[in-house]
Amino acid sequence: MKNKQIILAERPTGMPDEHTFKFVEEDILSLTDGQVLIQTHYVSVDPYMRGRMIDAESYVEPFKVGEVIEGGSIGEVIESKSSVFEKGDMVIGGFGWQQYYVAGEKEVRKIDPKLAPASTYLGILGMTGLTAYFGLLEIGKPKAGETIVVSGAAGAVGSVVGQIAKIQGARVVGIAGSEEKIKFLKEELDFDEVINYKTTDDISAELRKTCPDGVDVYFDNVGGAISDAVLNQLNRLARVPVCGAISSYNLTEIDYGPRVQSILIKKSALMQGFTVGNYANRFQEGASQLGQWLQEGKLTYQETIKTGFDTIPEAFLDLFRGNNIGKLLVKVNQ
Amino acid sequence: MKNKQIILAERPTGMPDEHTFKFVEEDILSLTDGQVLIQTHYVSVDPYMRGRMIDAESYVEPFKVGEVIEGGSIGEVIESKSSVFEKGDMVIGGFGWQQYYVAGEKEVRKIDPKLAPASTYLGILGMTGLTAYFGLLEIGKPKAGETIVVSGAAGAVGSVVGQIAKIQGARVVGIAGSEEKIKFLKEELDFDEVINYKTTDDISAELRKTCPDGVDVYFDNVGGAISDAVLNQLNRLARVPVCGAISSYNLTEIDYGPRVQSILIKKSALMQGFTVGNYANRFQEGASQLGQWLQEGKLTYQETIKTGFDTIPEAFLDLFRGNNIGKLLVKVNQ
Repeated sequence: MKNKQIILAERPTGMPDEHTFKFVEEDILSLTDGQVLIQTHYVSVDPYMRGRMIDAESYVEPFKVGEVIEGGSIGEVIESKSSVFEKGDMVIGGFGWQQYYVAGEKEVRKIDPKLAPASTYLGILGMTGLTAYFGLLEIGKPKAGETIVVSGAAGAVGSVVGQIAKIQGARVVGIAGSEEKIKFLKEELDFDEVINYKTTDDISAELRKTCPDGVDVYFDNVGGAISDAVLNQLNRLARVPVCGAISSYNLTEIDYGPRVQSILIKKSALMQGFTVGNYANRFQEGASQLGQWLQEGKLTYQETIKTGFDTIPEAFLDLFRGNNIGKLLVKVNQ
Repeated sequence: MKNKQIILAERPTGMPDEHTFKFVEEDILSLTDGQVLIQTHYVSVDPYMRGRMIDAESYVEPFKVGEVIEGGSIGEVIESKSSVFEKGDMVIGGFGWQQYYVAGEKEVRKIDPKLAPASTYLGILGMTGLTAYFGLLEIGKPKAGETIVVSGAAGAVGSVVGQIAKIQGARVVGIAGSEEKIKFLKEELDFDEVINYKTTDDISAELRKTCPDGVDVYFDNVGGAISDAVLNQLNRLARVPVCGAISSYNLTEIDYGPRVQSILIKKSALMQGFTVGNYANRFQEGASQLGQWLQEGKLTYQETIKTGFDTIPEAFLDLFRGNNIGKLLVKVNQ
């Protein structure tokens, strides 16, 4: 039995392409005491992984050239020399883009697929759901009646942000880039207003129309010109959780835009960058609240699931093409 | 007796000039019950006043064309029909650029020139001191051993920011634009490091040298390219109180620079715009702490005092020429 893996072949400049990734195979080593053999079921692809492909200091270590692309994955224990795990246990870990993984006991943790489908532990109950939960509630602090704008609104994070803001009693305006996404936000998630940034000539005019009372919270997933326009319409004491800047991740030149200082001063507004890891000691609380909202039917989720190990690189690139609704995953055990 | 005033003659585009202001004279009206006649002693000139000269929504109302330029002033009651004030009382108010003012009882408040020189109520114990105090302590939250960078370091706000940061046990790096200022910061205020942005070719290199452990707090008085460089050297969980953007106040075009979102995300950093008015309910606390530090010799202040009512417009323009050290005031009663 061979373990198929995807390694970082070379660091991308601009959009990653066929030279960036390489499929390799290796033998699976025998287990030593305390280890388990995991067969991967789901692999997560996330925009932040683009940042790890370059050799620059950030909040996570860069991937190493020639090594497996790490990232959130779900798998099944198919062999165990550990007293903690037994065959058949479903586990989550950071073992990434490979079909099998020999893990130590501390590298993975059990999930309960009876409580919620295994895939949700990578999405609504996992990293992206928790990102939405902590970024919105701890930084955005939406109040009932306030106007919340979220960009990347149909994505794994944005779609949860909008729903949590609705639960808080806020008015939610979503920005997304396709009619399918716009329909999803309006019809499935009950957003108050939606803006398709790809079909409008004047996003500022759309914002003025959909946010007649201005913007109290802007949950920023995208950066770039969309964010420039929203920042211009902030209200006094507005809060801007800065979660992602997907518009800039594949740029090869410095990303210029209007400087924000004057707006921040005029509006006494706050911009706060964050990553979900900042709230690691509260993941239990967040997951349990998200789970409760799911059970109560106050929260729903969407997944875009690709199938087949070989589709992982294309699935990853789809994130930047704006092709996914909700959490994008690859199911690898066919 | 005539009251000489300076009115806004027309709204400036770019740097204000001789067309912006006009000197006029009016008769002084007789007092009615409850009113006092004030003779102005000191007039404050502050960068934020530039923002009030244009007709745009901001945190304070724009000045009206044809009306007296409002702003902080100190004066002496020379006639009183009020039971609250008597002749000889020194008062502070927003009566601005005029030699005399007929005030109602609620428009001004008494100051005690025995506790501290009258001028300090416009500076270290007044608006600029409180701006430094609340912006640094409430947003910057410097901790002992951290590195604080302050731009506009020799100005009325910056010079107080640096000293308060030192009181908190932080390491302070000041950025200023003349050798005289640099000398003042090093020798009078005991800043740990100073950067003369006008004589260095490479402000980023200077920052790396003077902040080998990165920047934990950046108190931003200037915006523009200086701030771009400092933001690039923020540490994880850095805080950036955004107080002023003097580099942009006289621009006639949109002020472009590198977008900040990616830095904020990578560093989980915070930028928070503010104005001192946000802390109005705590002014007493701030002034009393600043006064105590002054008495204890932990805090010092510098004033640049011009003389003569007619010099007010030039004094105001000096703010943008970078000519002043500490608080810039005009003494108008010769």
